[in-house]
Amino acid sequence: MASIFSKIVAGEIPSYKIYEDDKYFVFLDVFPLKKGHTLVIPKQEVDYMFDLDDDTIAGLYVLAKKVGIALKKAVPCKRIGQAVLGLEVPHAHLHLVPINTESDLRFNNEKLKLAPEEMEEIAASIRSYLEE
Amino acid sequence: MASIFSKIVAGEIPSYKIYEDDKYFVFLDVFPLKKGHTLVIPKQEVDYMFDLDDDTIAGLYVLAKKVGIALKKAVPCKRIGQAVLGLEVPHAHLHLVPINTESDLRFNNEKLKLAPEEMEEIAASIRSYLEE
Repeated sequence: MASIFSKIVAGEIPSYKIYEDDKYFVFLDVFPLKKGHTLVIPKQEVDYMFDLDDDTIAGLYVLAKKVGIALKKAVPCKRIGQAVLGLEVPHAHLHLVPINTESDLRFNNEKLKLAPEEMEEIAASIRSYLEE
Repeated sequence: MASIFSKIVAGEIPSYKIYEDDKYFVFLDVFPLKKGHTLVIPKQEVDYMFDLDDDTIAGLYVLAKKVGIALKKAVPCKRIGQAVLGLEVPHAHLHLVPINTESDLRFNNEKLKLAPEEMEEIAASIRSYLEE
């Protein structure tokens, strides 16, 4: 069965898309820890990040850097934190989260509820910086 | 002033070393969230991970995959979680943490206090799997 992320990649489930190429897909987490919380995933449906081949891992993190730089411009913060947990959705994904304190990257924090218009605005802003 | 991690790389501060090459250094976190908590760092003293050049980022994560695979053999767990926060030590570092639940990757959790002998034993075990 396709993972929820594969359904997002296929367009069967809508997403706030930031970037897509033949190997990767980047979109806003719909349960954000912080405004701008973004997911970077390989299109290949691999459950565990460290089961990806070396080239795919390398490309994913080089892309994450580009996205992270754009995200920090769109949502000013001290750092873009990174996390990979992978215990819920069985499709490897990297969280990029704008943080000002370590506590901003706790996955048990209450998730934000942002209006669709605001989510689209954030995604558009990140996309615009990514294209610079 | 050299970061504490640069002093570890230079051998001025002792560490439980797991791996070293011309660009990277891997060692146990002395304040582990979980047994086997490991840090992967570039030798280059760059504060923010996303200021590293693309090749260095790519190489760091390909190495992290190798270390993560060895770590999971040395310290059996569901996943090796990854985190980058970077708000404390001004030298980019990736945390690799053996996790069984999301709560294992909370940086406000109390840190473990392991005896030096146990730390050395863990480091030796990870090194042995890394050399396989």
